[in-house]
Amino acid sequence: MKLLEDRILNDGDVLGENILKLTFLTHQVDFELMREIGKVFAEKFKDTGITKVVAIEASGIAPALYATEALDVPMIFAKKAKNITMNEGILTAEVYSFTKQVTSTVSIASKFLTPEDKVLIVDDFLANGQAAKGLIQIIEEAGAHVEAVGIVIEKSFQDGRALLEEASYPVVSLARLERFENGQVVFKEADI
Amino acid sequence: MKLLEDRILNDGDVLGENILKLTFLTHQVDFELMREIGKVFAEKFKDTGITKVVAIEASGIAPALYATEALDVPMIFAKKAKNITMNEGILTAEVYSFTKQVTSTVSIASKFLTPEDKVLIVDDFLANGQAAKGLIQIIEEAGAHVEAVGIVIEKSFQDGRALLEEASYPVVSLARLERFENGQVVFKEADI
Repeated sequence: MKLLEDRILNDGDVLGENILKLTFLTHQVDFELMREIGKVFAEKFKDTGITKVVAIEASGIAPALYATEALDVPMIFAKKAKNITMNEGILTAEVYSFTKQVTSTVSIASKFLTPEDKVLIVDDFLANGQAAKGLIQIIEEAGAHVEAVGIVIEKSFQDGRALLEEASYPVVSLARLERFENGQVVFKEADI
Repeated sequence: MKLLEDRILNDGDVLGENILKLTFLTHQVDFELMREIGKVFAEKFKDTGITKVVAIEASGIAPALYATEALDVPMIFAKKAKNITMNEGILTAEVYSFTKQVTSTVSIASKFLTPEDKVLIVDDFLANGQAAKGLIQIIEEAGAHVEAVGIVIEKSFQDGRALLEEASYPVVSLARLERFENGQVVFKEADI
C-alpha cells in the first residue's frame, strides 16, 4: 500500500536494530490513513463472506474499526486483561510481546463467536506472530473459521509470517519491512 | 442521547450493585453507534476550536476516533503502560481503575501537545473520574488547554462528575446512569 509505505518513510523512526516507532498508528492516530487502510482490507476481503473482524487492544483497534465499517460487520477486540465485568464464557490465550517484554492474557467472550463465523483478524504489527497465534487459538476454540490475517505492518525479518503460513493461515500485509539500512526502512513487495 | 440510552436498556447487563456490562462499547463494538456518538460530540464542540481529541486505551478509542473524524483533528490515545518504543519526552500520571482494581501509568508523548492545543477528552465511562483526572494532569503539564471532558456513559451515582466540575472542567455525558433498580438502569437527563 503505497500511501502507507510513503508515510512510514516520512514519519517512521528507526530505533536500534529492529524497532520502528510509528506514532501515527500507535499514539497520535491519523484517522484518514486508518480509514484508507480499513477500505483496502475490505476491498481485498469483500467477496470472502467475512462476518466478524477480530482485533487486539489497543493499536489494532483503529485500523480494524475502519475495516469493519467498510465490510459492514461487527468488530470484536480481544482484551489484554480480564476485568470484573467479564465473568463468564471467556476464552483466553497467553501472548508474549517482545516489544513490551510482557506476557498478556488475551480474551474474548465466547458468545460473540459461533461456528457460522468467518473471521478476519486485523492487527497493527506482525513480528513473531504470537498475538495472531493467540487470537487464532481463541477463535478456533469457539468453533469459528479464521479466513485470513490482515496486517498493517509486517516485520518480514521476523518469523511471524512463516509461522502463520505454515499453519495455512493466509497473511495479507499492507507494508512489509525487509530490513533497516542506515536508519531507513527497506520494503519487500507488499500483498496489496 | 436517545439512541444510546435505548441501546443501554436493550443490551446492558446490570451485574451486582453498580456494574453495568456494555459489550457494544467494550468488547464487540457497534461501529454505527460509535460513529453516531462521534458525530454528536463533534456537533456539540464544533465551534470551540478543538485541535486534538485525547482518549485512553482501549474502550475509549472507538468513540474518540469517530469524534476526531467528525471534528477533523488528530486523536491521541494515552497508553496504559510504557513500552520500549516510547523512550523520551513522556508525560505520565497514575490512574487507579476501580473496575479492574489496578493502578496503571497512563502516558502521552509530550511532543504531541503544545500550548496552542485545545483538547477534548473523550472516554467511554466516567465513574470516579480518576482516568480523566490523570489525562488532565498530563495535558496541562504539556501546557495545552482542556476544553471539556466528553463521556459516553456517566455513572452519576459516583463522584467523577463533581470532581471534574469543581475543578472547572465542563463534562458532557451522552448517557447518565442515576441508579439501578430491579436490574434495570434508571437515567438522569443527559447533557446531549
